[in-house]
Amino acid sequence: MSAEFAFEVTARDGRARCGRLQLAHGVVQTPAFMPVGTRGAIKGLTMAQLNDLGAEIMLANAYHLHVRPGDEAIARAGGLHAFTGWKKPILTDSGGFQVFSLAGRRTVSDDGVVFQSHLDGRSLALSAESVTDIQMRLGSDVAMVFDECTAWPVTRDEAAAAMQRTLRWARRARERFGVIARGEAPEIPRATPGQAQFGIVQGSTFQDLRDESVGGTVAVGFEAYAIGGLSVGEPPELMYEVAGQTAAQLPEMAPRYLMGAGMPNDLVEAVARGIDLFDCVLPTRNARNGQLFTQDGPISIKNARYADDQGPPDPECGCPTCRTHSRAYLRHLFMSGEMAGSTLNTVHNLHFYLDTMRRIRKAIEFGILADFTRAFLDRYSRGARH
Amino acid sequence: MSAEFAFEVTARDGRARCGRLQLAHGVVQTPAFMPVGTRGAIKGLTMAQLNDLGAEIMLANAYHLHVRPGDEAIARAGGLHAFTGWKKPILTDSGGFQVFSLAGRRTVSDDGVVFQSHLDGRSLALSAESVTDIQMRLGSDVAMVFDECTAWPVTRDEAAAAMQRTLRWARRARERFGVIARGEAPEIPRATPGQAQFGIVQGSTFQDLRDESVGGTVAVGFEAYAIGGLSVGEPPELMYEVAGQTAAQLPEMAPRYLMGAGMPNDLVEAVARGIDLFDCVLPTRNARNGQLFTQDGPISIKNARYADDQGPPDPECGCPTCRTHSRAYLRHLFMSGEMAGSTLNTVHNLHFYLDTMRRIRKAIEFGILADFTRAFLDRYSRGARH
Repeated sequence: MSAEFAFEVTARDGRARCGRLQLAHGVVQTPAFMPVGTRGAIKGLTMAQLNDLGAEIMLANAYHLHVRPGDEAIARAGGLHAFTGWKKPILTDSGGFQVFSLAGRRTVSDDGVVFQSHLDGRSLALSAESVTDIQMRLGSDVAMVFDECTAWPVTRDEAAAAMQRTLRWARRARERFGVIARGEAPEIPRATPGQAQFGIVQGSTFQDLRDESVGGTVAVGFEAYAIGGLSVGEPPELMYEVAGQTAAQLPEMAPRYLMGAGMPNDLVEAVARGIDLFDCVLPTRNARNGQLFTQDGPISIKNARYADDQGPPDPECGCPTCRTHSRAYLRHLFMSGEMAGSTLNTVHNLHFYLDTMRRIRKAIEFGILADFTRAFLDRYSRGARH
Repeated sequence: MSAEFAFEVTARDGRARCGRLQLAHGVVQTPAFMPVGTRGAIKGLTMAQLNDLGAEIMLANAYHLHVRPGDEAIARAGGLHAFTGWKKPILTDSGGFQVFSLAGRRTVSDDGVVFQSHLDGRSLALSAESVTDIQMRLGSDVAMVFDECTAWPVTRDEAAAAMQRTLRWARRARERFGVIARGEAPEIPRATPGQAQFGIVQGSTFQDLRDESVGGTVAVGFEAYAIGGLSVGEPPELMYEVAGQTAAQLPEMAPRYLMGAGMPNDLVEAVARGIDLFDCVLPTRNARNGQLFTQDGPISIKNARYADDQGPPDPECGCPTCRTHSRAYLRHLFMSGEMAGSTLNTVHNLHFYLDTMRRIRKAIEFGILADFTRAFLDRYSRGARH
């Protein structure tokens, strides 16, 4: 299966929209949350469990997979889909964020980045072109360009320089992508001929830099556009404002992806501002730390008050964990360090995120997103009743 | 659901037999392997995954659950089945083995054992009676008596003393069990009124002590009998010999449970000697260490030779792991420390054990167990072809 990339807006409500995103390995209904499987696996879940949750797309990370087991090994397996057993769409992040947050000593130039592997310290080099090649070998449905991601806060000069470099890299990445897509680089195996490539807008929280980045990135021309460099420590209100203003500049007919966000309230806030795609490690990471998301805010399952609580984690939730297990049992598993606890918590949290997106899509279709958003945020922010 | 305990032999082949074991929460086809869920969870699996594998009974440990979360907390949840969400039969080991292998400084007398918790060092006391009470509160389908388990090798005097003490404890455990079962101890909640109680034969590898233990234990009278104190370091041949001679002394019409065994070849060897029930941590523990059982012997998935091996772990296996994933992917998960690797390996190994038992039962029904055993052992002992 390798369909042509397409995106169709199927419903609108204010600046929010529902869409049908056709990728090489299937259709993704947007707004969508993409569970994070950095190394080709969702922490705590099998692919069968992820599929049972109704996820339509998974995220993996080109940098991590390049380091181990290697994109060439994955290409020999027939690409990420054959390697992982996940049949639906996969988006690979380029690793820009990881190189600038995880890696050891690094030297950045227009050529690219030379840095130390976070695993074993060996020297690695990534460039706009090599990251394009890596993702072609991985055969994801969506490849992200290699970008320079800044922390927050950052000076205007630093943000401008990183944004400009990201723009220069975007042109080279798109050029390289075209060369391979046209079959002019036969040495690069293409497991997914219909791969799409998304550009990334940078500029930190400086709106004029964001505008310049949008203009330059759209001028290069990608299948879709991501907003990078947010959800890196800035206040939520500032993130919503920058994401909203940036989304408003992006082409109407392309999906918009807010990278790395966020909390459940971030999802509803950003959808209302025109965002279509999300990824975040919170539902999976916090599950392993014993935090369960509910409509009434998160609860910490390790709390002693749950030791004799025979009710489900979330009385309103229809996920396999809530249908089968009590808070008392989940607390016991957490306190005992049983892996099943991490798995069951992850099932619940991902269900909560995916179900929230389903409810958001319904609200847009019915034209009641403003009411939904208000009710969701009001209830969520009042905190856990438990 | 709380059926009456019953055991019916449905087929025989030599000293081996197939049986239908009716327990309070359902029927177990024997010979059966019982996956080990020490703390009320199979390490790496959810109950749904265990159920999908076709397991008909799970083992849990009274000592571990007494220490955490406490049998009284589990009783308040309605017993182990309600607490864990596992609907089928559960056998609880008494914890005798754990007290004598895990616990810190201990004092053993006829009264019972005073010892330090393996978790936090606090002083705990267990006796024939209290362990009976604990398992009544847990509401397992089968409660094991509290026994004194010796290591191997052990002197004849030590083995005899432990065996005699186990026998005195067996009388008291059965007495206490009867008191509660007749409703004469209303302070002990009974989540599973149809609970059965199994006696345990000790005597190490001294056959005359084993014979004496069988006589005494059968004289007390239990629903079924276990052979304890084996699979504790003695050579396999000696284990088979003692298990076989002991099984031959036990009543024909009661199930026989060889505790703690074993390797896949132990299963077929012991079934041929009249054993009906098994439990062992090997399939689950070794899965987490990257060892996968196959008909051609175990393979170690971390081996570099599998880095580019796109074949399934076991080409003849129909488990979800082998139907979906390659050795290369499982190796990647192991090397990356991804939890999904432990889960997928555990699914495979438990499938292998449960499937081996299904094949054994078929071989008994068809009266070809000797041929099956020879072929199985020959192939398994030739080692992994991979």
